[in-house]
Amino acid sequence: MVDRHVSVVDDAGEALKKALIGPPGPAQRRALAKTITLLESKRADHRARADELLNALLPHTGKSARIGISGVPGVGKSTFIEALGLLLLERGHRVAVLAIDPSSTVSGGSILGDKTRMERLSSDERAFIRPSPSSGTLGGVTEKTREAMLVCEAAGFDVVIVETVGVGQSETAVAAMTDMFVLLQLPNAGDDLQAIKKGVMELADLVVINKADLDEAAATRARAQITSALRLLGAHAHAGTQVLQLSAVKGTGLVEFWQTVTQFLDRQRERGTMAERRRSQDRAWMWERVESGLHERFKNHPAVRDALPTITEEVRAGRLAAGVAARRLLDLMK
Amino acid sequence: MVDRHVSVVDDAGEALKKALIGPPGPAQRRALAKTITLLESKRADHRARADELLNALLPHTGKSARIGISGVPGVGKSTFIEALGLLLLERGHRVAVLAIDPSSTVSGGSILGDKTRMERLSSDERAFIRPSPSSGTLGGVTEKTREAMLVCEAAGFDVVIVETVGVGQSETAVAAMTDMFVLLQLPNAGDDLQAIKKGVMELADLVVINKADLDEAAATRARAQITSALRLLGAHAHAGTQVLQLSAVKGTGLVEFWQTVTQFLDRQRERGTMAERRRSQDRAWMWERVESGLHERFKNHPAVRDALPTITEEVRAGRLAAGVAARRLLDLMK
Repeated sequence: MVDRHVSVVDDAGEALKKALIGPPGPAQRRALAKTITLLESKRADHRARADELLNALLPHTGKSARIGISGVPGVGKSTFIEALGLLLLERGHRVAVLAIDPSSTVSGGSILGDKTRMERLSSDERAFIRPSPSSGTLGGVTEKTREAMLVCEAAGFDVVIVETVGVGQSETAVAAMTDMFVLLQLPNAGDDLQAIKKGVMELADLVVINKADLDEAAATRARAQITSALRLLGAHAHAGTQVLQLSAVKGTGLVEFWQTVTQFLDRQRERGTMAERRRSQDRAWMWERVESGLHERFKNHPAVRDALPTITEEVRAGRLAAGVAARRLLDLMK
Repeated sequence: MVDRHVSVVDDAGEALKKALIGPPGPAQRRALAKTITLLESKRADHRARADELLNALLPHTGKSARIGISGVPGVGKSTFIEALGLLLLERGHRVAVLAIDPSSTVSGGSILGDKTRMERLSSDERAFIRPSPSSGTLGGVTEKTREAMLVCEAAGFDVVIVETVGVGQSETAVAAMTDMFVLLQLPNAGDDLQAIKKGVMELADLVVINKADLDEAAATRARAQITSALRLLGAHAHAGTQVLQLSAVKGTGLVEFWQTVTQFLDRQRERGTMAERRRSQDRAWMWERVESGLHERFKNHPAVRDALPTITEEVRAGRLAAGVAARRLLDLMK
């Protein structure tokens, strides 16, 4: 076991770090893949090495635009991200696409698992596409993606796109790790109310109506509805939330989209709100991981594990008050 | 210190229990006040006695209709609850009114602190009114209210109303401890969108538009809007959610309100969904208390307390990755 508190990276880690922060190319790509494999390993010694490496990379991170993109299946996320990615490569950016798939934590399946989904982007050496980690809790999957983002930044990717599907709690997780959260919507009514209901609309820094070419009248209606909904949701917090229409398939509106993104990020940078947002994301992230670790430790404590089924059943049967049960379980851990 | 795992209540506890489950009257009222004081005590030996007493009372609980009532300040909650309470006393019910005030956890102030708010109801011997516990976290305040509810049930109150204000997370807490969650609304548009935004509308088993006499047209409009919003929010889950109009000040609509409540509860009882709801509430409550206890223990652990400021600062300054920081803190607790 490597001592976790040694503050220098070992030789192998030092070599990885050098390759990562070095020039783009095959050596860097290999180091990138290797590092992410290390991050996703379940072995304690790998985890300790990954932690050391992450800390050593930290001064080289933070220089990318972190963009979160979400939308229900069928909204056209892959097409949109591929078209956007290719545009950005053309402009000299280096683009990483990471994914958080909440269903992968159950099924082991994964969005972006099939790289042919973004064939042109994934075959370009200047882009890096990483599917969702395929196992673990949502918190664990999010952590690995968050760390992969830092590694990509250290490797000089200046745009990191984190994709998720518009179901479950993964949208909150993605919004909590990016500088700007973009919600893709279809041009039909009702969709926006679903987003409001799930609290996703509130997370959005920008709402994009994709496939606007299919039914222009519907797209315009949807835009007006979403704009007024955003206004009603809280004029203050959403004063800056814009609603754009585009068509990823036809490639129309992408330039305007990126312009809106860069304007938003520039404004956040100037005001210092980007740094503040990242600091508060880090703080929240640390606490989320602490709570999750405490929960794991509790459930794995031998005395708790032994007593839990009985105590749970006592509560279920109405023989033990829930609060009393909690105190008894906590006492067992002392 | 009393051993928490002794399963019989001590003599004083036995006397309290007898008085509580005995006939209504001054002795029961004294026992009720004494027990709730015991529940709210910060002393460990009191807490242990309270736990024993709660468990001994448990077989005598569960027989009330647990009604949660929420609404923004100004919606007329006190007037409504007083009018409803008086109607129920007239019909032979025994009514307890408890409150959860999220602001009390900050300010030490408390809704229902001023009993003159429900002068007629609070002066009636057949009613029991208890203000919000005035200190502690929201979780702590909710726990005390939840336990007070059990004590009231053991004392034979067959209607327990838990009131909260329409701000903060307290509505989720109240919905999570009652059989039916009622949302009071004012007859104006926008109000309903706010409720949707905060996710409160989804919690509602019944939406009541109060002060419907002030502007009948507006109330009718609000009712139509809320009904369609509920439908859009998810036809399935909210198939049964009704929207009523009434005027608590004039006393119109109260009889229909209570009829709706009893029909809802009867249906839930017949289908077994009430028992299931209570079981899942108990389970969730146990886990909420466990997580909260783990968090407290973590923050009070000497090594963690010593290291937390430095580690938090390292994360803030970008010298330590958030996930790595969490693992270090957890290691300190081992």
